[in-house]
Amino acid sequence: MNESDTYRIHPIGYIRRTDQGNQLEIMEAYQPALKQLEHFSHVMVFWWADKHDNEKSRTTLQTQPPYAADKLCGVFATRAEYRPNPIAMTTCKLLEVDEANGIVKVAEIDAFDGTPLIDLKAYFPVCDRVKDAHIPGWLSDWSEWMPEEGLGL
Amino acid sequence: MNESDTYRIHPIGYIRRTDQGNQLEIMEAYQPALKQLEHFSHVMVFWWADKHDNEKSRTTLQTQPPYAADKLCGVFATRAEYRPNPIAMTTCKLLEVDEANGIVKVAEIDAFDGTPLIDLKAYFPVCDRVKDAHIPGWLSDWSEWMPEEGLGL
Repeated sequence: MNESDTYRIHPIGYIRRTDQGNQLEIMEAYQPALKQLEHFSHVMVFWWADKHDNEKSRTTLQTQPPYAADKLCGVFATRAEYRPNPIAMTTCKLLEVDEANGIVKVAEIDAFDGTPLIDLKAYFPVCDRVKDAHIPGWLSDWSEWMPEEGLGL
Repeated sequence: MNESDTYRIHPIGYIRRTDQGNQLEIMEAYQPALKQLEHFSHVMVFWWADKHDNEKSRTTLQTQPPYAADKLCGVFATRAEYRPNPIAMTTCKLLEVDEANGIVKVAEIDAFDGTPLIDLKAYFPVCDRVKDAHIPGWLSDWSEWMPEEGLGL
């Protein structure tokens, strides 16, 4: 166990943004993993922030976020896509799951067209919905809930 | 963009379970990324399910979950640790953040001692808390909220 350990991950599909909406295109090999997903209202979409898979972004450990420019924050205290492992995660509202064709339509997602997908996890309130969550005072005007359609670009 | 693409991730620290509690030990190189995290009540802990980083687990696409043994589910519709990319994520209640020493104490976490950590993200209700979430009927007796102390082993 040391810092040079490396784990390997592979894309399971790609994000497609079109005039008709946003969809997750899952590679054929992984399509059986979608079974029953249509019974959930939301899915956590894990994507690879490929534009930040470089030395500069992966060694940026602190930032002044756009929403709080006077606060120097560690990247673990933000959702910045530049971080040591550029794994991003967006909770999305599910519109449609087509298991046979590997298409998952979502309302909104804050990732660019062509972004690699690395995992999907159904949203379970018992795991993911925190009743008494608080955030720093400088974010106190932010919504207490995810917007109905989710977060887009 | 094809199935053989590989992305590389590295541990940022390890989970330690002791009689005194559960803590995340962050490697020295990544400790500055913890700055300001103490102002949040919860953190999403991304860990590498190292016991499932093998061919069998990574090609298991469907499962009969212990809580619904008569339902064949795709792994994307579950939180199983066996999945194409064995990335697991647990939302944890923060107890203490010691940036200088790289120690983050959490109430509960459902990962074994020694498990590699790959990312931390502060829990933002605007991103992560869904007001109108629903789950399959066969899970209807599950809590609508994460337990106060979180999910343990």
